[in-house]
Amino acid sequence: MDLNSDVGESFGSWTMGDDESIMRVVSSANVACGFHAGDPVVARATCAAAAQEGVTVGAHVSYRDLAGFGRRFMDVSPAELTNDVIYQIGALQAMAAAAGTTVRYVKPHGALYNTIAKHEQQARAVVEAIRTVDESLPILVLPGSVIQREAEAAGLRAVVEAFADRAYNADGSLVSRRLEGSVIHDPEAVAARVVQMATDSTVETLDGQTIGVDAESVCVHGDTPGAVAIATAVRAALEDAGVPVTSFL
Amino acid sequence: MDLNSDVGESFGSWTMGDDESIMRVVSSANVACGFHAGDPVVARATCAAAAQEGVTVGAHVSYRDLAGFGRRFMDVSPAELTNDVIYQIGALQAMAAAAGTTVRYVKPHGALYNTIAKHEQQARAVVEAIRTVDESLPILVLPGSVIQREAEAAGLRAVVEAFADRAYNADGSLVSRRLEGSVIHDPEAVAARVVQMATDSTVETLDGQTIGVDAESVCVHGDTPGAVAIATAVRAALEDAGVPVTSFL
Amino acid sequence: MDLNSDVGESFGSWTMGDDESIMRVVSSANVACGFHAGDPVVARATCAAAAQEGVTVGAHVSYRDLAGFGRRFMDVSPAELTNDVIYQIGALQAMAAAAGTTVRYVKPHGALYNTIAKHEQQARAVVEAIRTVDESLPILVLPGSVIQREAEAAGLRAVVEAFADRAYNADGSLVSRRLEGSVIHDPEAVAARVVQMATDSTVETLDGQTIGVDAESVCVHGDTPGAVAIATAVRAALEDAGVPVTSFL
Amino acid sequence: MDLNSDVGESFGSWTMGDDESIMRVVSSANVACGFHAGDPVVARATCAAAAQEGVTVGAHVSYRDLAGFGRRFMDVSPAELTNDVIYQIGALQAMAAAAGTTVRYVKPHGALYNTIAKHEQQARAVVEAIRTVDESLPILVLPGSVIQREAEAAGLRAVVEAFADRAYNADGSLVSRRLEGSVIHDPEAVAARVVQMATDSTVETLDGQTIGVDAESVCVHGDTPGAVAIATAVRAALEDAGVPVTSFL
Repeated sequence: MDLNSDVGESFGSWTMGDDESIMRVVSSANVACGFHAGDPVVARATCAAAAQEGVTVGAHVSYRDLAGFGRRFMDVSPAELTNDVIYQIGALQAMAAAAGTTVRYVKPHGALYNTIAKHEQQARAVVEAIRTVDESLPILVLPGSVIQREAEAAGLRAVVEAFADRAYNADGSLVSRRLEGSVIHDPEAVAARVVQMATDSTVETLDGQTIGVDAESVCVHGDTPGAVAIATAVRAALEDAGVPVTSFL
Repeated sequence: MDLNSDVGESFGSWTMGDDESIMRVVSSANVACGFHAGDPVVARATCAAAAQEGVTVGAHVSYRDLAGFGRRFMDVSPAELTNDVIYQIGALQAMAAAAGTTVRYVKPHGALYNTIAKHEQQARAVVEAIRTVDESLPILVLPGSVIQREAEAAGLRAVVEAFADRAYNADGSLVSRRLEGSVIHDPEAVAARVVQMATDSTVETLDGQTIGVDAESVCVHGDTPGAVAIATAVRAALEDAGVPVTSFL
Repeated sequence: MDLNSDVGESFGSWTMGDDESIMRVVSSANVACGFHAGDPVVARATCAAAAQEGVTVGAHVSYRDLAGFGRRFMDVSPAELTNDVIYQIGALQAMAAAAGTTVRYVKPHGALYNTIAKHEQQARAVVEAIRTVDESLPILVLPGSVIQREAEAAGLRAVVEAFADRAYNADGSLVSRRLEGSVIHDPEAVAARVVQMATDSTVETLDGQTIGVDAESVCVHGDTPGAVAIATAVRAALEDAGVPVTSFL
Repeated sequence: MDLNSDVGESFGSWTMGDDESIMRVVSSANVACGFHAGDPVVARATCAAAAQEGVTVGAHVSYRDLAGFGRRFMDVSPAELTNDVIYQIGALQAMAAAAGTTVRYVKPHGALYNTIAKHEQQARAVVEAIRTVDESLPILVLPGSVIQREAEAAGLRAVVEAFADRAYNADGSLVSRRLEGSVIHDPEAVAARVVQMATDSTVETLDGQTIGVDAESVCVHGDTPGAVAIATAVRAALEDAGVPVTSFL
């Protein structure tokens, strides 16, 4: 099973997350490209750390919104979005090459990730960007999303991901963060869920049912000490269960 | 003789220069990479126009200073500068590829161009960036500059350029813009000077001497209607003199 | 009748619009505050020109989006929006004071203007910002908009504006820009319409009806030579009709 | 004795420093204005915290350089610098007013602080900005600096500051950070030095001499847990010595 996490989100004098620790846990690193976070120095150092740990590098592309950390929907035109994504991938490709590695997948960030799960025009703009850069680059997506459908229709590989610490509804969607119980905080509980996803392709829903989860990657976080502890527990539990943590590539 | 000019310096809703006209005049297009000007939509359209006209694309890299248009010296560290330049080249490479062309040289912009003519540490940082991306990329430089020396010492090709509309001192340096007569405004006079540079490798200095000028490229401007008229006259005069306008590559 | 126009939208080395000409036409100047356009040098010079011409200065507040010129909807939180607007008004107040004048009203720009015509939460956030800075500052609004209702409910003065060059539907709304005939390009026709608005409080709709228009200000443009010609014709026609062009204050 | 510290340097999703703790220690808060750090939400919350704790608010103005955190010299023109500073003070005045307080002094940040200690033209540009906004606003300066001289010559109050944790040379200048012993890390040693500054107006130099120090404010830091511990020790020691910590105003 692949584990992916957002890294390289420091910017200038501001740091974010414990990249050093999380890089020892994951198999795929979603590296910020400078539009929501990250700068060229940070991006290169992050790619170098990924190369050092044998972690696959992905381009964590975003709306152009440093002040909002890419978490605010922006009604950008398809041409703007396509070219913003191409620019970010290209910039990160150069930083990755400087660090002795390569960009091997794309994961949209934050509000863009959420938007293209439903917004056809923006989803197509992202697909168009990836196809323009390199048709062999997979894209990490929410299962059942518009972006999954559009990516696959265009011949891209869409890698569906599950969320280690999020509760699921019976229809396979995520429980809204506004509802109680939407986020699971206990490291052992989270770890056990991920093992179940990896070994049985199932997960317990918030209301106690068991549903199928067919993920090729599981998203973990590294932005707080608690998050790193959870991610570490997930990796340890997978390895204990005989599931190697390895890239989906 | 190569003619180069700065293009792609529009940004969002702001336009700058008459890129459409200048692209029909030059053989090399210095395309802004987003740090002093240009955005992904503009960069791609500019590269597409260059490809259409058979013009070679160069990365016009800069300090990160949109508000100052890259015209203000910034005391950046070597690591920041190296990585900022790598990032910009990589981003433009992706935009160029999307437009069906490639980045084939680098020209530093504005304050960075002037700084690395004298500032060893920043010059080396730029050289390091280009070497990291692609050792075969030439860099356009001021003749006799520190960046020329550092680039050549590192094994890069340094392409020296002359300035079509600038007066020269007897030592081959440019007459300061603060002095009267530093800029030549008459299109025919400028054109005649460039023809002399191209055919005799000489130029008349402000005080009436004739000195050698050994340029592989001549820089022309496209930011005003007057500048475009001059550039157009330069090209016509070169062609009339039997000097083809063609890339230094 | 008041005439208002967007000014101060140059940024760094990029210029936009013919502010010098439009400043001799209007009675109210919507001065960009740096979030979609404008920088401190431009803002101060624009305020100084307004002071010189006896034109009232308003704060043209926007989403934080230079790359998009404030024309893209952004899903900002109420707290972000309120504080972004307060910040912009305060910054412009200082530039206006430096130029010997004061900020006397607020006009939201672009996507923010359009959004708060319908979006209650963002409308309230803008109202909250103005109330926090100075409850006596009027806000320029689209007639019948959510922002008009919210501003008035909060005790602010909402100044409704008409659009000189836009066609109207029978219900008083603007004809969509996507439809033919939505924008009127003939200076004399536009001027005649504004005179009718000012003297009869009516306007002809696209389908030939006459409806009431109760505007305290008319918006004109200065971003193209054609726009300045229209604005100039509007002012001349108003003066010929004995309608003084004067601020709504 | 006044204690001042830099606060409000978080930006968007990035946090910096322990403002909550440092605000209980200092009497003067240098609040970032958005050019090197800080955003409108952060600035307002920081001013509100200062108001709550009875701490005086100052405008911590900077070069426009978020990526470099204002720590890189920029060769801005006097007109740009003057207007950038006016803009920042005005913006912070609005945020402070929204938080129930006012901006009562100015402290230049980072590279700007260091530059105007020596650079006459930039020093005058900052003085011009403050005079334009409000001649009664004092400016915090390095003793013996060009900015002190220029501010005083222009009729501004220049408040000289000492540095709690920095070693001094015999001529009263700070020991370069590149030299061993330039920064003092022991909280008790730092606290004792500040008490000596406050009660005897003297300090021990790195080479063991005692020199006069005539500071109206002492700068402490809050960006690391160690820095907060030092600042807290300084305040406690001053109070133990019967020296009230109170604004220079």
